[in-house]
Amino acid sequence: MRFATLKNGFKDGRLVLVSRDLTTCVSAGPMAPSLIHLMERWDELLPQLRQLDQRLQAGTAEGIQPLVPEQCAAPLPRSPQWCDASAFLNHGRLMERAFNTPPIPDFDTIPVMYQGASDDFLGPCDDVLLPSVQDGIDFEGEFGVIVGEVPMGALPQACLAAVRLIVQINDWSLRALGPREMRSGFGFLQAKPSTSFAPVAVTPDELGTAWCDGRVHLGLRVTWNGVHFGQAHGSEMNFGFGQLIAHAARTRRLTAGTIIGSGTVSNESSQRGSACIAERRVIEILETGAASTGFMQFGDHVSMQAVFDDGTDAPFGRVNQYVRQARP
Amino acid sequence: MRFATLKNGFKDGRLVLVSRDLTTCVSAGPMAPSLIHLMERWDELLPQLRQLDQRLQAGTAEGIQPLVPEQCAAPLPRSPQWCDASAFLNHGRLMERAFNTPPIPDFDTIPVMYQGASDDFLGPCDDVLLPSVQDGIDFEGEFGVIVGEVPMGALPQACLAAVRLIVQINDWSLRALGPREMRSGFGFLQAKPSTSFAPVAVTPDELGTAWCDGRVHLGLRVTWNGVHFGQAHGSEMNFGFGQLIAHAARTRRLTAGTIIGSGTVSNESSQRGSACIAERRVIEILETGAASTGFMQFGDHVSMQAVFDDGTDAPFGRVNQYVRQARP
Repeated sequence: MRFATLKNGFKDGRLVLVSRDLTTCVSAGPMAPSLIHLMERWDELLPQLRQLDQRLQAGTAEGIQPLVPEQCAAPLPRSPQWCDASAFLNHGRLMERAFNTPPIPDFDTIPVMYQGASDDFLGPCDDVLLPSVQDGIDFEGEFGVIVGEVPMGALPQACLAAVRLIVQINDWSLRALGPREMRSGFGFLQAKPSTSFAPVAVTPDELGTAWCDGRVHLGLRVTWNGVHFGQAHGSEMNFGFGQLIAHAARTRRLTAGTIIGSGTVSNESSQRGSACIAERRVIEILETGAASTGFMQFGDHVSMQAVFDDGTDAPFGRVNQYVRQARP
Repeated sequence: MRFATLKNGFKDGRLVLVSRDLTTCVSAGPMAPSLIHLMERWDELLPQLRQLDQRLQAGTAEGIQPLVPEQCAAPLPRSPQWCDASAFLNHGRLMERAFNTPPIPDFDTIPVMYQGASDDFLGPCDDVLLPSVQDGIDFEGEFGVIVGEVPMGALPQACLAAVRLIVQINDWSLRALGPREMRSGFGFLQAKPSTSFAPVAVTPDELGTAWCDGRVHLGLRVTWNGVHFGQAHGSEMNFGFGQLIAHAARTRRLTAGTIIGSGTVSNESSQRGSACIAERRVIEILETGAASTGFMQFGDHVSMQAVFDDGTDAPFGRVNQYVRQARP
């Protein structure tokens, strides 16, 4: 099944079920007014939603309406918790060079993960309001999962079974602020403004064999100002989502609706291109001695679309955002 | 005014107004079923709540009941966002020595702050379930503020005006996990299990002149297994809450209900004692060459009570917790 959240003036928005071709949707109704409500009552509500989904697919559900991406919030506009890993080690190693930070201890055996703000996510077509281009504005294409309740100390296998939905993420970063926050040891705060999401969260079965080993085996096609930027592939994730969730749950229980991110999708071979500017820049430095690509300017646009290996679009819909200057 | 949240089986609990002597309370009723509800409608609801508070003080409100701390959740059992600073630089400098981590850049001019989990706070008398004493279990006594909406880029003065409530915090830490997470640059995650709160959140006027310059000028009396541990004073905070809130809002807006913490209360003079074990241990190392105090064991108890300079109790109520082993 495919879920989206329509903006309705309230923080949690209104949950809709989305058709397989992503062109229409139908309200999940009073039984599941919002996705957070559904996450907290998943087992109880899913059977009725499956029936509604069948009627949506058959075109017989009442109240079918067009799905307009601009009307979509993030699938979970605010979530209880957002923990983002850096599970593509190739990306992490390149970023160490970009930031000139010391090697991360146990980097290939223990996942690194930061706690992000989760109170104010952006929708797929929302403008990204930021104070200054001096901060080094960068997009980061990722995949993520939304989990049900996870008890403290759960093992990776059980954690993987708690995955309810898969999402596609644009984890905005301010690169000029990152190194100082990393060196402080307290992690990213100002360097991570509101994160954005593609409109549709999908149950794992929607990805078929592309959801495998706790990884999202899809390409992530990124376009910057209309120009192809990269199409890194999710299969090279060095830790699966089961391991990442278990890492987050080591000393705390996770409440339903917690989102765990993969970190920037990245591949050992640079042929496919990158999913963020910082990575391209460090590759340029390594290859030519200097970065020729700058960070984003106000008015810039980024789009992100996940694709199956046969070239067809994955069912998350598209991130489609402009960067604008925040006016105080 | 003084607010507490009673456990009622739902995540946000039930909001009550608390009497000045903290012995009785009255439901805030359907107009403000939970504190998060109130935070989002503060200006609209406050006048009615002030009237209810007057009736509570006069003993004429309907439904006045005893306030039982064991029935209290954290004032905000889950909040949109929890950002904890380390604004007592004396503590930060001692912790650098304790953790053997490099000096934090710009430590005395730019606040350091980590993003904490905010989905699952503990109440004042809740057992603290943790997996292992090998993790170095430590309490950390702090003060914090709960803010209304803060726009991105707001200046410290405006941020200070957004403070709605003041809280007293026990920010549990797992010291064996901290240094690795600091060195990763991604900040605390496993090292910071669920944070606990004293039962009562108070409006700033309840502290009288002890709320001054965006600082909480109170002592924080900490008792470990019934033995006095320390009574550090909040006045030495090197950044005020206005600066801390502005730091958090530099590249994001803060939604109503965001909690900003001071970090462990700490004083230049070690005479008053500490508000966490790690700090005492490093002082022991500096004075005698070795730490004689160990971290907490299962079954250990901690209490924390803020006190005015005249020795009377501040109106937050008491943190009163046992540490227990989590059973998977």
